[in-house]
Amino acid sequence: MDKKDLILGRLRGLGNGIIDDVERHTVPAIKVPSRGTSNIVYDDAKRYYVLGDRYGKRSLGNVKQIKKVAQMVSTANFCKGLVETQKTATIREMYYVSEGWDVDFGDQQESNLIGEDLEVTLGVTREDLGLMPEEDGAAVYGDLTVKDDDVEVNALKSGKSGYSISPTIDDVEFLDHGVERVIAVETMGMFHRMVQEEAYKKFNCLIVGLKGQAARATRRFLKRTNEELGLPVYICNDGDPWGFHIAMVIISGSAKLAHVNHELATPNAKFLGVTASDIVNYDLPTDKLKDIDVLRLKELYKDPRYHEDFWKLEIKKMLKIGKKAEQQSFSKYGLEYVVEKYLPEKLDAMES
Amino acid sequence: MDKKDLILGRLRGLGNGIIDDVERHTVPAIKVPSRGTSNIVYDDAKRYYVLGDRYGKRSLGNVKQIKKVAQMVSTANFCKGLVETQKTATIREMYYVSEGWDVDFGDQQESNLIGEDLEVTLGVTREDLGLMPEEDGAAVYGDLTVKDDDVEVNALKSGKSGYSISPTIDDVEFLDHGVERVIAVETMGMFHRMVQEEAYKKFNCLIVGLKGQAARATRRFLKRTNEELGLPVYICNDGDPWGFHIAMVIISGSAKLAHVNHELATPNAKFLGVTASDIVNYDLPTDKLKDIDVLRLKELYKDPRYHEDFWKLEIKKMLKIGKKAEQQSFSKYGLEYVVEKYLPEKLDAMES
Repeated sequence: MDKKDLILGRLRGLGNGIIDDVERHTVPAIKVPSRGTSNIVYDDAKRYYVLGDRYGKRSLGNVKQIKKVAQMVSTANFCKGLVETQKTATIREMYYVSEGWDVDFGDQQESNLIGEDLEVTLGVTREDLGLMPEEDGAAVYGDLTVKDDDVEVNALKSGKSGYSISPTIDDVEFLDHGVERVIAVETMGMFHRMVQEEAYKKFNCLIVGLKGQAARATRRFLKRTNEELGLPVYICNDGDPWGFHIAMVIISGSAKLAHVNHELATPNAKFLGVTASDIVNYDLPTDKLKDIDVLRLKELYKDPRYHEDFWKLEIKKMLKIGKKAEQQSFSKYGLEYVVEKYLPEKLDAMES
Repeated sequence: MDKKDLILGRLRGLGNGIIDDVERHTVPAIKVPSRGTSNIVYDDAKRYYVLGDRYGKRSLGNVKQIKKVAQMVSTANFCKGLVETQKTATIREMYYVSEGWDVDFGDQQESNLIGEDLEVTLGVTREDLGLMPEEDGAAVYGDLTVKDDDVEVNALKSGKSGYSISPTIDDVEFLDHGVERVIAVETMGMFHRMVQEEAYKKFNCLIVGLKGQAARATRRFLKRTNEELGLPVYICNDGDPWGFHIAMVIISGSAKLAHVNHELATPNAKFLGVTASDIVNYDLPTDKLKDIDVLRLKELYKDPRYHEDFWKLEIKKMLKIGKKAEQQSFSKYGLEYVVEKYLPEKLDAMES
């Protein structure tokens, strides 16, 4: 059974459940797995957040829930149309499409939540249902050939800014590659530095420019390079709590998306820096930690995703030195330094 | 003389001027055209902001200016290295590189200003000097073939998210195209809608996804499609003061960059919507104007760039109806509507 049939089957299942209830003269209701914090659990074996087995019921017998049930069914029906015609819509577009329904959404927040309810109820991702986020994913540079919409694209021949991961990355087929690893960097400034210094040759890698917090499409892409292509994935971000956490969400997923982390998290991905130790060892230009940085580091310290000794040590060290540093601060030693000295030393240490 | 020689010539000129001063036993000084508001003028003939002819002097005879002069010369020297080796650096990297100078920058703001001083003094763009912004430009989809870094890229064969305009767009050569016009849209949501509904075929156009406020590279790209390829450029943004102004900065440039508007502005580009009239005529889903929207609309009304009757009418109308609408609000009539009905009607009206 191909994916399209699977998704359509799940959508029909939702509708048929309601019809069955009606025919059996019981009040129609939908079982929705709970996304409350008490039902979000860090799974030590899987190394990411998952949902527990608690769920709630949305029943037409409850006046307060009637509108939500109707919105879920309308949304499911809209998604069925998308999947059948192989189209996609942004969640913003769906919000406007709902103007034509009897149960239109009051605001974007409301339609987003129904989208997530549908994800968790059907056990598929929003993207599987044709509902796309607004933003594109990361930029990729290096020897990877993909089939995107019947066109073959090589990410070494897509221009200096590389191949853009589109929200529909799951429809993209990996055809061929000639690399040994993937190195993701936080900013496009560092991406262009890596391209210019030919890091893709030197490290025989794909370079991925995350553009800050990684989009869902980027996380899917990184997971697929790791699990489908068997490539090690390294993440090189700024040396501050925000850089750490951008990496950690790629590695262990977010609590908010616990119901889809199995599709998004890459537990084998590794943080390649910048660490507090790097700040000291490389004598990097720094900024003083702000109050909000300190607060955030203390939160991370208690977060189950940061349970490894490596993180405990680095977070404590950063709090002790009271300083943070950006990726681009290596330029103090010249533009080439990060590719010629820093990354080789770090990769050597991690891969030996 | 090729561009590289021209830029190197300008940089050497700056240094030689100082050497000449020393040899003639006069106090070295650099003439820097003034970027103060009183020296920024809207040029009716050119249809964008330009700098007037006032300038200031940065002199080594003035204690307060010694550091600035030294920073300008150090920056010029750094840029000379970039241009000679055909490398680029982000302005953030330059900030860190300055750590190795005797006159390092106190903060990013200080180094940005020196970058602009150098632009205006030498009469070239920052990008010509090898100093790049962090962010990439827009996404382009459609039948355009470019030569980017010795690789030929066709923007119809770069994947669903298209070809990314890199900060180094000026080094990219336009080889061939098969289109009649360029349509730029504000959001990537609308970009993907246009691609999915095959707007590039229907309107025989390039689709450009601006991603909000257009990056300098995007503005260069649009100017080049208009002036080098002779293509009409249309901009279809949200129907609110922010959407208007994203379009206007593409058309008539910004005051802040008056000294480089001749490289960035596309005075022939046209606003294709969403207008206040569209909101009424198409009965679009709207949001109420917020206080800040009203304030901004009143500012635009007085701005010389909005002198045309078209803008005067539409701004007044929007203030009167008190409502704004997003591009994606056309989805009320179905996802295809914007491509099948709205854009054809608007283009017909504008091109007839």
